[in-house]
Amino acid sequence: MFETAELGQKVSKKEFKERMPALREALLTAQRRLREKAEFPVIVLFAGVDGAGKSETVNVLNEWMDPRWLVTRAFGPPSQEEQERPEYWRFWRDLPSKGRIGLFLSAWYSNPLLRRVYRKSDVAEFVQDLEEVLDFEKTLADDGALILKFWMHLGEKDQKKRFKAFEKDPLQAWRVTKRDWKHWKMYGKFVSAAERIISRTSTSDAPWFLIEGLDPHYRSLQVGEILLRAMQIRLGGNAADAAPKPDTIQAVAPSVAKAESMPTAGTSNKGGSASAKTVTILTNKDMSQKLSRKEYQRSLAKYQGQLNVLHRKARDLKLSTVLVFEGWDAGGKGGAIRRITAALDARDVQIIPIAAPTDEERAQHYLWRFWRHLSRAGRVTIFDRSWYGRVMVERVEGFATADQWRRAYTEINTFERQLVEHGILLLKFWLHISKDEQLRRFEERKNTPFKSWKITDEDWRNRERWDQYEIAVHDMVERTSTQLAPWIVVEGNDKRFARVKVIRSLCDKLSQAVK
Amino acid sequence: MFETAELGQKVSKKEFKERMPALREALLTAQRRLREKAEFPVIVLFAGVDGAGKSETVNVLNEWMDPRWLVTRAFGPPSQEEQERPEYWRFWRDLPSKGRIGLFLSAWYSNPLLRRVYRKSDVAEFVQDLEEVLDFEKTLADDGALILKFWMHLGEKDQKKRFKAFEKDPLQAWRVTKRDWKHWKMYGKFVSAAERIISRTSTSDAPWFLIEGLDPHYRSLQVGEILLRAMQIRLGGNAADAAPKPDTIQAVAPSVAKAESMPTAGTSNKGGSASAKTVTILTNKDMSQKLSRKEYQRSLAKYQGQLNVLHRKARDLKLSTVLVFEGWDAGGKGGAIRRITAALDARDVQIIPIAAPTDEERAQHYLWRFWRHLSRAGRVTIFDRSWYGRVMVERVEGFATADQWRRAYTEINTFERQLVEHGILLLKFWLHISKDEQLRRFEERKNTPFKSWKITDEDWRNRERWDQYEIAVHDMVERTSTQLAPWIVVEGNDKRFARVKVIRSLCDKLSQAVK
Repeated sequence: MFETAELGQKVSKKEFKERMPALREALLTAQRRLREKAEFPVIVLFAGVDGAGKSETVNVLNEWMDPRWLVTRAFGPPSQEEQERPEYWRFWRDLPSKGRIGLFLSAWYSNPLLRRVYRKSDVAEFVQDLEEVLDFEKTLADDGALILKFWMHLGEKDQKKRFKAFEKDPLQAWRVTKRDWKHWKMYGKFVSAAERIISRTSTSDAPWFLIEGLDPHYRSLQVGEILLRAMQIRLGGNAADAAPKPDTIQAVAPSVAKAESMPTAGTSNKGGSASAKTVTILTNKDMSQKLSRKEYQRSLAKYQGQLNVLHRKARDLKLSTVLVFEGWDAGGKGGAIRRITAALDARDVQIIPIAAPTDEERAQHYLWRFWRHLSRAGRVTIFDRSWYGRVMVERVEGFATADQWRRAYTEINTFERQLVEHGILLLKFWLHISKDEQLRRFEERKNTPFKSWKITDEDWRNRERWDQYEIAVHDMVERTSTQLAPWIVVEGNDKRFARVKVIRSLCDKLSQAVK
Repeated sequence: MFETAELGQKVSKKEFKERMPALREALLTAQRRLREKAEFPVIVLFAGVDGAGKSETVNVLNEWMDPRWLVTRAFGPPSQEEQERPEYWRFWRDLPSKGRIGLFLSAWYSNPLLRRVYRKSDVAEFVQDLEEVLDFEKTLADDGALILKFWMHLGEKDQKKRFKAFEKDPLQAWRVTKRDWKHWKMYGKFVSAAERIISRTSTSDAPWFLIEGLDPHYRSLQVGEILLRAMQIRLGGNAADAAPKPDTIQAVAPSVAKAESMPTAGTSNKGGSASAKTVTILTNKDMSQKLSRKEYQRSLAKYQGQLNVLHRKARDLKLSTVLVFEGWDAGGKGGAIRRITAALDARDVQIIPIAAPTDEERAQHYLWRFWRHLSRAGRVTIFDRSWYGRVMVERVEGFATADQWRRAYTEINTFERQLVEHGILLLKFWLHISKDEQLRRFEERKNTPFKSWKITDEDWRNRERWDQYEIAVHDMVERTSTQLAPWIVVEGNDKRFARVKVIRSLCDKLSQAVK
């Protein structure tokens, strides 16, 4: 999930100075209209990694907007007065009234997060804490409140750097406490709990936005633009703004917004978040990685041998494996799958190629056809394409409505969680190739008689929508790469490298699982 | 909650024979239309108390409808095959396809319920189990499935009687097992878990309907009519049917349906559930209970003394008390409240009379003004009218939209749960008088100079809507009388009896709490 907020995104001082004034003016206008209408409150919540700029961003918003109509609230440990009431009393007390904006720091997420990280709650209690949060937010949203939640993120190394930099600066040193360092050492626990928080409590009523917190310019603009867009949509009817579908708050999510205002339209977009240089999870992959034929043959033999042993162990332990292969057309899925099956007893493996659904499948929920293929304990099930079609091809080609593919992220996470909690080892591979490499392979296929059946008009059509698919991949990784079931992006320009990376990853995870 | 399913409701054989053929015909028609459209599946789930007629009702539906398009599934302990997959695999496998109806017995609620009753799960794990259920049902409902859930209920004594009767009958004796008797002894635990299940998982997508299971005719008709109505609404556009608001499944809830088709319209209602003789939670209260002046004075003095001691104990323990008084106009709320405050130190008590909200309150969520009045630890807060206005006057007078008052039940339950879980003692009194007694009191007030200010035109207007208010009281008790915060209905035709019952109830609960 957090991979997408560790891309090193920045905005130069120059660009910031260009974009900021218009954004600020638009925010002030929206704030004034909100106040005049006085129909609903706006609740903006900040949480995330320390050092990622939560309080700085709140300060920026206070500077940009009219502070008389902003309420800023930070919550420390509860006072005596507060302890004598139910936990949510202090949050209720400080809610902004209709027409106002409330900025909340370390509010109702703080307690659930810290309880979990310090292991004062077990998983079930943690889920229960989050239920309380969901009930609270639903109650407010049902009454009309506009709720936006920003998760400010920093990678583990960047957080360390940030703390070190603060400590060197006499004016900033106070920002870093012993507790901050203690928490840094618990980074993994924080991230793990955060992932569950975000995936559980990101609802259409109160969505989370993941903000990369490294660069102050970038994060301020991101937050400001999302806030602006959400307010404009809810306030409605301002023709000057390029408002996307006003029916769902999710429309303001940056990457989704990008996808919707991308190639075909290409309209300029005042205050919009669709910047020209779209950075995605695939942007900075090192596609030059390769293996010589010799290295390949040696590694492949080694890992196939390992896999065979590991699988038999898993079979005896009744441990099932589910492998998901997704990737670009001609990305090398088939080849990678064959290198795995070659190492296994065919009776234990089932390959499920996913094409268009049958009539019987069409008469059921789209997940039904994947549930039905779950095999008995101890087997390996390989999905050649999968349930991710819902958020990839069905999204891009418009076979699924926006509502359908948007809610599919949650449905998929639930489905996969059930598999993993049942003890199934689940691995998901995205076979990535560059656009040029795809072209080379398409041409090769076209010109090679025994391969030409592999290339269809549809492949060429999909290729034209490369950018939209790339956004869809980015969103998919952001929303479905979880600690339980992470995405493994395989740099596949070199087929040998890709095949070995796949089988090696499988061996690694399987050996942990059978331990 | 279950008070409303222990009213002894029956349908005579004659009435059953009159109503059944039309219902059956309409069900067959709806089933045919469902099949022809084939746009969504219908999922009907039965759960509840053993002996309350779950499987009998499923048999009746199979008899009434076309069994070729019905799928009936009962789930026992999972088979080896099933254990090797995630828990929900077998439920997914057996889902009806679009156009069909699936009847599910002891399905996905069975495990959460039994785990909790046998204390294999703690509260947090129980909540987590229910989350799994909610995710599952939401996934299906989002895809269009019509989901109806029937909770078949029997009181503790009636269950015993039913088992005894079965045992006497050689043809039925097999129905009663040792396990049934064991469960009967755990009745309290079952009901407590059931209450949480129903209040947590009754959503607009997949509502629960509480069915009184005592009388086979009554329960069959109830289930049949709700199923019919829900299907008709979803299939849409049949002018012959008295279809209420088609936007919410809750419209088919029997009591709500009654309220909506009641006095003003008075239309006859083919196959409808609005029977002429509406039985509510208030119908069979013994209103003749009274106390002599002497008994009254003695009891009052006794309980006021007790209350004083108990309260000081509670104050020292920092235990807060919240009392809610609701009731008919002239029901005697004020008098009952004064008999309590007379026994307490005025510094520890706060009376909050609830009238129209202030401007500041109007600019917030309707619950905000109740949250703000929660006092510090160790105090007593008395609400003279309360948050229940949302589901009483605001519902009946149309000040709240149907969506608003319907979701208020859940909001109120959450709010009250937070109070109780924080350690607050919460008691809710409904001061009940008969319609005749109200008239007598109104007249008396009108004719007594120092009381005439107490009676307004509004009181007379409210009185005209007595029946609608009574339905609202019934729904309120059904949905918000929980084990944590039960409603205490006070038979108030005799003021002395009422006042003593209130203060005695308070003493009872308080003495348990300070123990």
